[in-house]
Amino acid sequence: MHTLAAGILTPSEITAFLLALAVLLGVARLLGELAKKFGQPTVLGEILAGVLLGATVLGNFAPAAYEQLFPEYLNDHQSGEPVFYDKTDPETDEAYTQTVTDPSTGEQITVTIPDRNHDDAGKLTSDGRVPSLVKVGLESFFVLAVCLLLLVAGLEVDLSIVTKQGKAAVAVSVMGMVVPFAIGFGVAYLLAKGAPALIGYNVESDKALPFALFLGIAMSITALPVIAKILMDLNMFKSDMGMLIMSSAMVNDLLGWIGFALVIAMILPEGESALSLQFVIPATLIFVGFMLTAGRWLADKAIPLVQAHSSWPGGILGFVFVTALLCAALTEWIGIHAIFGAFLAGIALGDSKHLTGRTRETIEQIVTYIFAPIFFAGVALRVDFWADFDIVIVLIVLVIAIIGKVIGCYVGAKFAGMSKRESWAIGFGMSARGAMEIILGQIALSFGLIEKDLFVAIVIMAIATSVIAGPLMQKALDRRQQKKFADLLSGKAFVPRLKAGTRRAAIRELAEAAADATGFDAADIDQAVWEREQTQSTGVGNGVAVPHGRIEGLSKPQMVVGVSPPGIDFDAADGVAAEIVCMLLTPADDPLMQIEMLRAVAEAFTDPARRRAAVEAEGYTQFRAAIAVGSTAAH
Amino acid sequence: MHTLAAGILTPSEITAFLLALAVLLGVARLLGELAKKFGQPTVLGEILAGVLLGATVLGNFAPAAYEQLFPEYLNDHQSGEPVFYDKTDPETDEAYTQTVTDPSTGEQITVTIPDRNHDDAGKLTSDGRVPSLVKVGLESFFVLAVCLLLLVAGLEVDLSIVTKQGKAAVAVSVMGMVVPFAIGFGVAYLLAKGAPALIGYNVESDKALPFALFLGIAMSITALPVIAKILMDLNMFKSDMGMLIMSSAMVNDLLGWIGFALVIAMILPEGESALSLQFVIPATLIFVGFMLTAGRWLADKAIPLVQAHSSWPGGILGFVFVTALLCAALTEWIGIHAIFGAFLAGIALGDSKHLTGRTRETIEQIVTYIFAPIFFAGVALRVDFWADFDIVIVLIVLVIAIIGKVIGCYVGAKFAGMSKRESWAIGFGMSARGAMEIILGQIALSFGLIEKDLFVAIVIMAIATSVIAGPLMQKALDRRQQKKFADLLSGKAFVPRLKAGTRRAAIRELAEAAADATGFDAADIDQAVWEREQTQSTGVGNGVAVPHGRIEGLSKPQMVVGVSPPGIDFDAADGVAAEIVCMLLTPADDPLMQIEMLRAVAEAFTDPARRRAAVEAEGYTQFRAAIAVGSTAAH
Repeated sequence: MHTLAAGILTPSEITAFLLALAVLLGVARLLGELAKKFGQPTVLGEILAGVLLGATVLGNFAPAAYEQLFPEYLNDHQSGEPVFYDKTDPETDEAYTQTVTDPSTGEQITVTIPDRNHDDAGKLTSDGRVPSLVKVGLESFFVLAVCLLLLVAGLEVDLSIVTKQGKAAVAVSVMGMVVPFAIGFGVAYLLAKGAPALIGYNVESDKALPFALFLGIAMSITALPVIAKILMDLNMFKSDMGMLIMSSAMVNDLLGWIGFALVIAMILPEGESALSLQFVIPATLIFVGFMLTAGRWLADKAIPLVQAHSSWPGGILGFVFVTALLCAALTEWIGIHAIFGAFLAGIALGDSKHLTGRTRETIEQIVTYIFAPIFFAGVALRVDFWADFDIVIVLIVLVIAIIGKVIGCYVGAKFAGMSKRESWAIGFGMSARGAMEIILGQIALSFGLIEKDLFVAIVIMAIATSVIAGPLMQKALDRRQQKKFADLLSGKAFVPRLKAGTRRAAIRELAEAAADATGFDAADIDQAVWEREQTQSTGVGNGVAVPHGRIEGLSKPQMVVGVSPPGIDFDAADGVAAEIVCMLLTPADDPLMQIEMLRAVAEAFTDPARRRAAVEAEGYTQFRAAIAVGSTAAH
Repeated sequence: MHTLAAGILTPSEITAFLLALAVLLGVARLLGELAKKFGQPTVLGEILAGVLLGATVLGNFAPAAYEQLFPEYLNDHQSGEPVFYDKTDPETDEAYTQTVTDPSTGEQITVTIPDRNHDDAGKLTSDGRVPSLVKVGLESFFVLAVCLLLLVAGLEVDLSIVTKQGKAAVAVSVMGMVVPFAIGFGVAYLLAKGAPALIGYNVESDKALPFALFLGIAMSITALPVIAKILMDLNMFKSDMGMLIMSSAMVNDLLGWIGFALVIAMILPEGESALSLQFVIPATLIFVGFMLTAGRWLADKAIPLVQAHSSWPGGILGFVFVTALLCAALTEWIGIHAIFGAFLAGIALGDSKHLTGRTRETIEQIVTYIFAPIFFAGVALRVDFWADFDIVIVLIVLVIAIIGKVIGCYVGAKFAGMSKRESWAIGFGMSARGAMEIILGQIALSFGLIEKDLFVAIVIMAIATSVIAGPLMQKALDRRQQKKFADLLSGKAFVPRLKAGTRRAAIRELAEAAADATGFDAADIDQAVWEREQTQSTGVGNGVAVPHGRIEGLSKPQMVVGVSPPGIDFDAADGVAAEIVCMLLTPADDPLMQIEMLRAVAEAFTDPARRRAAVEAEGYTQFRAAIAVGSTAAH
């Protein structure tokens, strides 16, 4: 008899699956970019996408559309009626009966739906309805996505810089973990016993110890990618302090995740837990030990072998993905979570200097921009951030998370010999939690360790700390974010084709455009810039010129860009005529700004291919795109 | 009450899902590389992975392991018993009864299992067992993978080169489609009516016309990526003939896929088909028309906008994926298949010159090396290539596919004014079917249009034509595949650190190594190379030297590579001492070989970063890896 080969998914399910992915990715990327435009972490926009598309907004205001887009349960595809799991034994045709213990009351109850509807501890988890296959597909995709996210997080960990930082890194990371852990654990344990409702402790779970341990860990981990981004924005990534913060955060992450793995081991199914813990904890420690020693060594030997004997980059990409998936499957099988395996695989592989930047980049780009947005939007999908928002829980979590981390790191940094100002900055920087915290919360939620209101509080805390860490650090160090060329560009201050053929005329022409953009007098601008130009030519070579001047009364810096494909002689040392002329106007009372802008222009045009594309661009949008394309992106 | 947030998948299902992906990817990549080593198309290895891991080998010889790795049905996760869909109405508790028409007998039959177990035409497709959630997850992943594969295929289509080739491209592609289509359609239709068993026609489907149309199209489409690879291997990609073949193949693909979309429209559910066809065919044509005109224009306008106003490459990657997923969902909803939408999205997006090479590369690499191997291994997973192998069907399909295509293209090329030899070469080149044919067959199988034995024949035909196209084309044109540097390298003929400090000593040292590798006398080799060296220095600059000589009696070319980090003066024009010395020995009767080898060496070391890495490599493996990394990969 003929059977459908791929007939599991009907056309309407395939449509729904692809549409759900498209909508999640599209809205998450859009809001992620928007968040970035306002200087906020991308993950904020991605979570917001899930809030909009999920139970919080769409589910409340257009439940039919929400159910259509993200169907929860399977319906008969002709009658539209719900489909249930069979309640009768196919052989005897009698109803399945099964006795399970209700953990909340301790009573024995008899149920007539199949065991598929219980979790491993025998607790009822559904009413016997078959889940929608679209949902199963999406959940599977989320599992893969979160593993790849942790793979990339692992690739970013560089254990060699940790050893270089030595004592200081250990002091900051240990104190930065111990203090928030102790406060988080203590408060959580006391409240779980005394006032569980106040903090969203899942009373049914009867697991106050792992609950408190989890909250302690949740308070003490940190967010490598967010911190890296903040440091890059402040041009401090390669500084001593930047390296100290990065290496502390790495130690922090590693210890935090190992601790979390052990907490998960503690909340394994009750029936097997006695045996399980005896197996899971040593297995976890052996796996971690192996990956950080022999695993790293093996990866370093294997990568050149793979690259020598396979096509590039197919061989190495396949090797990285297969290793990550295998380690993920292994840790899931051990009984901790798949993400630990992927994370440790990332550390072991990323440590090898033979893994080229190009390979890392390809993996990171796809994961960061395709898998991550879908995952984070998906995380927020099934949670009602409005109904499950509890201001008391949010405040408790926020206060402990910030105070604990800042104080811990401050003390650690002072101990390591940092100045007061630097110690505050390190404290603020390390307090950013970012995406990793949300993953932690999502897993705790899926294991029934926390309730949805606490999950909501953790998500809010993760985002809030990521949002405030940068500005607070800036304030502590009195540094400002570096200007980027793209931030200085504006369509109003752009001359797509300069009419001028000489340096003198070009400055006059750009001064006119600058006058339109700023409201200042064109003649004044022209005079200031031309005076400066006469003292020394501003043709910096490679076809770029940067005439500039300080304008009395100007409140913020202004750049005007003009393009001249035939080129204008700006008397550059290399003799090349300027095809791109960037006129820079700065407030008279901000002498450093000019240098910063000059640096931004130089950086934008170092790549000859990008310069070429910018000159050939037709109009402002193409010019802006030419500058943006190929610039190294930080997430 | 607490419910599991992500509790749909149990830990053991997550483990199985990740393990299945890891094993499919790992084995497919491994065998894909192996196939490549033997000069065969990668897809051959990927399909073989599915044959090994799937129903054919693992399923027959270790059925328990096969079921463990790729579970077909859901079992109760405590008792291990099969889980069925409920057969009773949850409200009345009475058995579901439903009357459906058995298409093979036309009789009305009453069934008591829910409609979920019928396809859209009301035909029974399963016995009521719930599919394994791991399988649902994998199938969802395959759906996504095949859409992304077609997206990449679409990105590779360049409509502008088609218009440049004009008449000749039209002649070759039209004749190259019409002849195999006519033969395929005619034979299939006659046999479906007269001797259905002979060709694997699904008698139950009662759809001889779409069946014959499908086979006609299957005979007439071609495989862009395979052909591109063959042309690159022969260094003919940029030649007139290469461009003619490529543009003919593009027209071919486009028409073939549109035709296939219409065939799918014809086999829609019987109940709705009258109405459906009236909707599906115009909707398909409008969508195709839109994407090839307004869609291309819109994409070209949108891409610079996206790149100008979003972070790079996150914005553009998100845009490409979202567009492809939306178009895929749209075509699936229209009633044709999701892949057409993804393919046309790829054409529209890929046509824009604003989509940079770097973005295309990232997408292509991940799709080609991660999604494609998993998909092709997955395709072969559920088919038993041994049980469903039917030599008669295989031979019929093979003969029609090759003869039809070669003759059609030969006639078209002759008509367009090509020489006899060139026309044969074009015919052989165009006969490669590759991966696209397998996707076509897989969809036809899933729609119940063909039986598994015909599917097996189509897969074999696709691979066989891809394997023979290259050698036949070489033969017709009397060209040989270009030697690549990596092919010339060997661990036995490699001196990781030259002891020599002078040109004379270096040649002597390498001659010794060459003697070990070839069995020829070291003194003879040394003399031949040194004599040649004295006529003109072989220091070609950039730190590379290529001393060479012709050796009487040598049967195949031999290269010996020595590395000298301090550098050896080879009297190069740029004055840079040679850090890499490649001694090239060629048979005396093959004058062209020397030039080819010199080209291969030059090509290998044009990139300064790669040269640097090669010099710093420790040992042969690292040297080989350094050469391989970053070299543009062709699939």
